Amino acid sequence: MADATSAPQPPVDFRTEPGRYKHWKLAIDGNVATLAMDVKEDGGLRPGYELKLNSYDLGVDIELYDAVQRLRFEHPEVGAVILTSGKERIFCAGANIRMLGQSSHGWKVNFCKFTNETRNGLEEASAASGQTYLASVNGPCAGGGYELALATDWIVMADDGNTAVSLPEVPLLAVLPGTGGLTRLVDKRHVRRDRADFFSTTEEGVKGKRAVEWGFVDEVVPRSRLDETVRARAAERAAKSDRPQGAKGIALTPLERTGDRDRLRYPHVACAIDRARGLAEITVSGPETAPPADAAGVAAQGAAFWPLAVARALDDLILHLRTNEEEIGLWVVKTAGDAERVDAYDTLLADHASDWLVREVRLYLRRVFKRLDVSSRSIFALVEPGSCFTGTLLELLLAADRSYMLDGAFEGDARPAPSLRLTATNFGPYPMVNGLTRLASRFLAEPSRVDELKRRIGEDLDAAAAAEAGLVTFTPDDIDWEDEVRLALEERAAFSPDALTGMEASLRFAGPETLESKIFSRLSAWQNWIFQRPNAVGATGALQVYGTGQRGEFDRRRV
Amino acid sequence: MADATSAPQPPVDFRTEPGRYKHWKLAIDGNVATLAMDVKEDGGLRPGYELKLNSYDLGVDIELYDAVQRLRFEHPEVGAVILTSGKERIFCAGANIRMLGQSSHGWKVNFCKFTNETRNGLEEASAASGQTYLASVNGPCAGGGYELALATDWIVMADDGNTAVSLPEVPLLAVLPGTGGLTRLVDKRHVRRDRADFFSTTEEGVKGKRAVEWGFVDEVVPRSRLDETVRARAAERAAKSDRPQGAKGIALTPLERTGDRDRLRYPHVACAIDRARGLAEITVSGPETAPPADAAGVAAQGAAFWPLAVARALDDLILHLRTNEEEIGLWVVKTAGDAERVDAYDTLLADHASDWLVREVRLYLRRVFKRLDVSSRSIFALVEPGSCFTGTLLELLLAADRSYMLDGAFEGDARPAPSLRLTATNFGPYPMVNGLTRLASRFLAEPSRVDELKRRIGEDLDAAAAAEAGLVTFTPDDIDWEDEVRLALEERAAFSPDALTGMEASLRFAGPETLESKIFSRLSAWQNWIFQRPNAVGATGALQVYGTGQRGEFDRRRV
Repeated sequence: MADATSAPQPPVDFRTEPGRYKHWKLAIDGNVATLAMDVKEDGGLRPGYELKLNSYDLGVDIELYDAVQRLRFEHPEVGAVILTSGKERIFCAGANIRMLGQSSHGWKVNFCKFTNETRNGLEEASAASGQTYLASVNGPCAGGGYELALATDWIVMADDGNTAVSLPEVPLLAVLPGTGGLTRLVDKRHVRRDRADFFSTTEEGVKGKRAVEWGFVDEVVPRSRLDETVRARAAERAAKSDRPQGAKGIALTPLERTGDRDRLRYPHVACAIDRARGLAEITVSGPETAPPADAAGVAAQGAAFWPLAVARALDDLILHLRTNEEEIGLWVVKTAGDAERVDAYDTLLADHASDWLVREVRLYLRRVFKRLDVSSRSIFALVEPGSCFTGTLLELLLAADRSYMLDGAFEGDARPAPSLRLTATNFGPYPMVNGLTRLASRFLAEPSRVDELKRRIGEDLDAAAAAEAGLVTFTPDDIDWEDEVRLALEERAAFSPDALTGMEASLRFAGPETLESKIFSRLSAWQNWIFQRPNAVGATGALQVYGTGQRGEFDRRRV
Repeated sequence: MADATSAPQPPVDFRTEPGRYKHWKLAIDGNVATLAMDVKEDGGLRPGYELKLNSYDLGVDIELYDAVQRLRFEHPEVGAVILTSGKERIFCAGANIRMLGQSSHGWKVNFCKFTNETRNGLEEASAASGQTYLASVNGPCAGGGYELALATDWIVMADDGNTAVSLPEVPLLAVLPGTGGLTRLVDKRHVRRDRADFFSTTEEGVKGKRAVEWGFVDEVVPRSRLDETVRARAAERAAKSDRPQGAKGIALTPLERTGDRDRLRYPHVACAIDRARGLAEITVSGPETAPPADAAGVAAQGAAFWPLAVARALDDLILHLRTNEEEIGLWVVKTAGDAERVDAYDTLLADHASDWLVREVRLYLRRVFKRLDVSSRSIFALVEPGSCFTGTLLELLLAADRSYMLDGAFEGDARPAPSLRLTATNFGPYPMVNGLTRLASRFLAEPSRVDELKRRIGEDLDAAAAAEAGLVTFTPDDIDWEDEVRLALEERAAFSPDALTGMEASLRFAGPETLESKIFSRLSAWQNWIFQRPNAVGATGALQVYGTGQRGEFDRRRV
């Protein structure tokens, strides 16, 4: 898009469905699906660039994300997915350069974050969902194209004169392969660092036998045998999948969203934007009815099943706010409803954790909470009477940068004092990108606290008990509540948005690191820096002049 | 300094000695040393700012670094070091804001890197050298001042109305506490993230009992009992130290450096700068004589002991090139000398590893190699006839982004073909900031390779064997050598310096993360980004307008 400041654009809608895809073709053959990228050149999300050579923009990636989600929920029978290109002479040329060149800094960073999350999701499908991704590289596979292949579990490449994998960002564009590429080279594929160095500075990339020997791809085969080879590998993986062949998927029906720009409503999730104060108030409602009795009941409810409906709504809302509401820097999270019922849903989810659909629902919630963790927005949780921060919904509070819980009731409010409740769900199924639960990350200083808290599952913890347990930050009483909360919100809104982003990214993920956390910390942070540097984005920066015939001119000082 | 482009300044010299200190007072009382910060207001390294309130600039930190080195080598009797302030009413206000405000981006980043390395060195002294650092916080301790305290092993704070610890960077300056502060809060002290969040947005910081309860300091005591308490804690630690009370230290005699801007010579290390090609050729020479027979012999040689002399020279050279030669983006590393003798020195170091001085020498080499790893310069190693990439010196090659080794001899050159040699030293004493040896980081894909290589210790590996063993990147023969190397150097010099910095930082440290690696990856990368953002450094950025009475004006878009 043209710089967001100069040319207002319609908001991006992340909701789509296969019938509306412009860029991807999904085909299912028994237990193997094929997802073919066939980007429509004039189908860009914004004016000003053509999506040549199967290059992508946010719109292309929104469709990919939707397809991946549907494969998981709508196709229990699919145990392997082949990612390939629908074009004859190119696999994928990566993110569209002209699109990047004309985008604002914030757009570039947000675009990379979303594409990273989608690729991490592919890996999660392979690792945890019994739906393994493979790449069939049937033409030149460059930059973001190779990064997409890197996110699959097995890369087969055609051995012809034309096809190579490459990361030409550094030599061509003066930016990083920032969608996980560098990290996956050395931390997933364990390519030797000197070979990775050579590769990442070589425009033309590597092909043939050397690509296998050095670890860039898993197999090369003659072009004529590419399809059959990939199909065979996919079939092997699908045969090992624990997904049920006979089950029926559930339809991800169109997500309802009503209201206007300042007030959005989904089933179970509402968002009110206060532009003057720079904040969005997000309220998640608990279930209105008791959970179904068993996994069959979950399947019968389908997309209406409360935890799934909440996951879908929150997912869409987070993406919407990140992309379309850049100036809303603070998300204030509340809940409303009945703790007992949330608890009952958590019990159902835990009791049927091995059911394919329940597993998908929990994995989806896990991804949504991770999205929250890596969002560049301050998150405060407010615990008030009528709330239900219990189990799955308590994760929202644990994901917050800080929390305020009312100690007691409000004067003149008949509702009782609020309480928090832990369920077994807080102790395992929703790890952060660092691989730890939010509780374990919280209590790194005293890991024994986590065990103590396990013994308090099901207890209603009032403000004093929650503070004592270390679950909340501040517990003002009704006399102090309004002022204390108001001042905290005002203060937050006054700080530098950039300093907050860096601070939050530094404080949220203590403890161990994983491939995912490295992508969001080291790689993305460096990419953000470079996206800000004149050598990339200045008038003579390489990203800016790409395609004009000029070469980038560089300030040669090393920083 | 004024922006480096507009006002050329004399080069920074990192060499100093206690007699020349302006800002620190070192006192030794038995086995406890006290290092008191007493910054001279008009003693700034560059014109344009006053070092009020014990704030620091690079010059202050150069003295600190020197003092820390001398305590290690010159004072074997010292088992604990108290860091405190020599001023009555302030501990330390952190990095000088006006200095930061008038510095170029590169200067800020390089300054933070050096201060980070010095603080990591304090922690290494506490952990590995039997010389434990404690902080006696005898007045307000803000920002970089608190980050300095955080790098010690035990923080005692005066409990008075005046003294608090704080990280006011985010609220006051719109930058991060980027010298390890945020990382050490949550990853070293394991402060709960919501408390760390509150603390890092609170200008006035935290004092008294809450500072202990929340984990920001280890003890608070009345002002009147501060000295005795810290002394007692220091004495306990010194009593447990394994440093020898009776030994005599060795003098870190003034480091000889001759030559001119383009050609620097130290004992055993030479550097030739080729400005047209944007590179520095660094040649490390092997020892000219056999090693001394034992630890007493090492002590007798003192600063002339070859490994120590190499460490000091390389250390100074790295710091010089980083700070004074920003446009020299590529360091080409060579060695010259006799492999047998290097091997013999490694044997001596290994045989006497528990001797305090030998231990210090090895730890110093470890720190120097780490400095190389985190330098924002491309590093190529060239292995030619006459070289001695053996053991300790082989680490230089393993630290390089890539290496070229001549296969065979040069025509008309009587010297034999070059070879590499592993010693036991390559398998332990010099871990990278990620905690792994360079060999282990290199062979993450095949850890068994490291064990295989252990069996080849002492073997002379020619180019074919070295390539087969995975130790070198390319092995051109004499026909290809000149062109291949020349093209590689030219190509490297042509890339965007920023993209290379981000790429190298992403490829060099695969595998696990540590406190140190997190500081250099996540925290520093975010800090670099923020140091580039208009909200901090633009005309109305908070860092820029600090002290003028104006408030920073922010672009409210979150990125």
